[in-house]
Amino acid sequence: MKAILFDVFGTVVDWRTSLVRQFAELGKELEKELRFELPGEALADQWRQLYAPSMDRVRKGEIFWTNLDDLHRESLVQLLDQHGITLDVAIIDRINLFWHRLTPWSDVQRGLQCLKEDYIIATLTNGNVSLMVDVARHAKLPWDMIFCAELFEHYKPDAEVYLGACRLLCLPPEEVMLCAAHNADLRAARALGMKTAFIPRPTEYGPQQQKDLAAEEAWDFVAEDFIALSEQLRK
Amino acid sequence: MKAILFDVFGTVVDWRTSLVRQFAELGKELEKELRFELPGEALADQWRQLYAPSMDRVRKGEIFWTNLDDLHRESLVQLLDQHGITLDVAIIDRINLFWHRLTPWSDVQRGLQCLKEDYIIATLTNGNVSLMVDVARHAKLPWDMIFCAELFEHYKPDAEVYLGACRLLCLPPEEVMLCAAHNADLRAARALGMKTAFIPRPTEYGPQQQKDLAAEEAWDFVAEDFIALSEQLRK
Repeated sequence: MKAILFDVFGTVVDWRTSLVRQFAELGKELEKELRFELPGEALADQWRQLYAPSMDRVRKGEIFWTNLDDLHRESLVQLLDQHGITLDVAIIDRINLFWHRLTPWSDVQRGLQCLKEDYIIATLTNGNVSLMVDVARHAKLPWDMIFCAELFEHYKPDAEVYLGACRLLCLPPEEVMLCAAHNADLRAARALGMKTAFIPRPTEYGPQQQKDLAAEEAWDFVAEDFIALSEQLRK
Repeated sequence: MKAILFDVFGTVVDWRTSLVRQFAELGKELEKELRFELPGEALADQWRQLYAPSMDRVRKGEIFWTNLDDLHRESLVQLLDQHGITLDVAIIDRINLFWHRLTPWSDVQRGLQCLKEDYIIATLTNGNVSLMVDVARHAKLPWDMIFCAELFEHYKPDAEVYLGACRLLCLPPEEVMLCAAHNADLRAARALGMKTAFIPRPTEYGPQQQKDLAAEEAWDFVAEDFIALSEQLRK
């Protein structure tokens, strides 16, 4: 095994807590103008619920390739409309950039530094390049490379994304491992011959999370977090 | 200005010294088998002379897209043949990987760290992804992103490479600067609206270097090295 690719949203960064916090900060800043409270938790959860359907529109060919920033923005406008919330375009643009300022789980920075000593480490994400560059700078993630759906104009779990990254690394899939907190992502990677590592993130979707609480298949590695994964790999 | 893109071969890494050193090390290792000395300097210089013509074959549509590792290997085989040198395939493969282990100029690591504090820093190189990932790991280059010709299936100075990187960064060309030791590269960037910075590397091609000894146009910035560039930009 030469390289480890990482799913990002949920696996590397705690998008929900980060969005809720940024909604709260914005709400406080706009307190006098808005005259109502921004329902941060609801907006964060519902925004994320629109994520898979928005990518499906691209995957099914209903719309041309559209990057995640643009899909996020369409979903956000739809969501604010549903809530009857009217905001300036500039504020909507700012909210869309909340995704560029996500905070990593506490084990991530140290874990990635350890893993980087022995393996090429890179993202394998549906986020676009600009978003991922900003997240990496904000969260100080020491990636060797940022592989994004945008580079292949296909969203995971389309095979083009996984195989595209392997091809650019000049590595056969069996020498590349996907690390993710989502069983479905790992199933797609395994079907293409890649190695797999599951890291549970049981609060990714908040305290009532129902799915991806545990490994659903015998993945090559299952570890509590990135630090534990690096220790397992060194044994 | 939000991002600085860097040409790599010559601007960031001293490919010639690195190749000559690796040829010398290999020559020493194979001393008994080979029974002749590997002409390291000649091989390094002539290999690099085949670089532009090999990319031109892609640029003119004579051959389909071929990444730099593969072009390097074809050039190397041709070159060894011209010299009447016969080597095992495994040794030829090893020599081809010399390009993955290039050493940066002495100002680069510190300069990039300083520049990274204020700007997104990324490569903009004709090298392929796998090669650049290896160089970045070997030379400890803290890139935010690796942009390669391979991602766009066009070689510099084709506009697709420069504009492709700007598009993926979601930045207009005027907010992106190319930093290079080569006037021609900067001319291509400026023609597309990008900012430009020239850093002379007067020994890139060895002690008898004739070209790119100085800025040939009034580039936006001209600095002795990356550290001086970061100081100029902070003024």
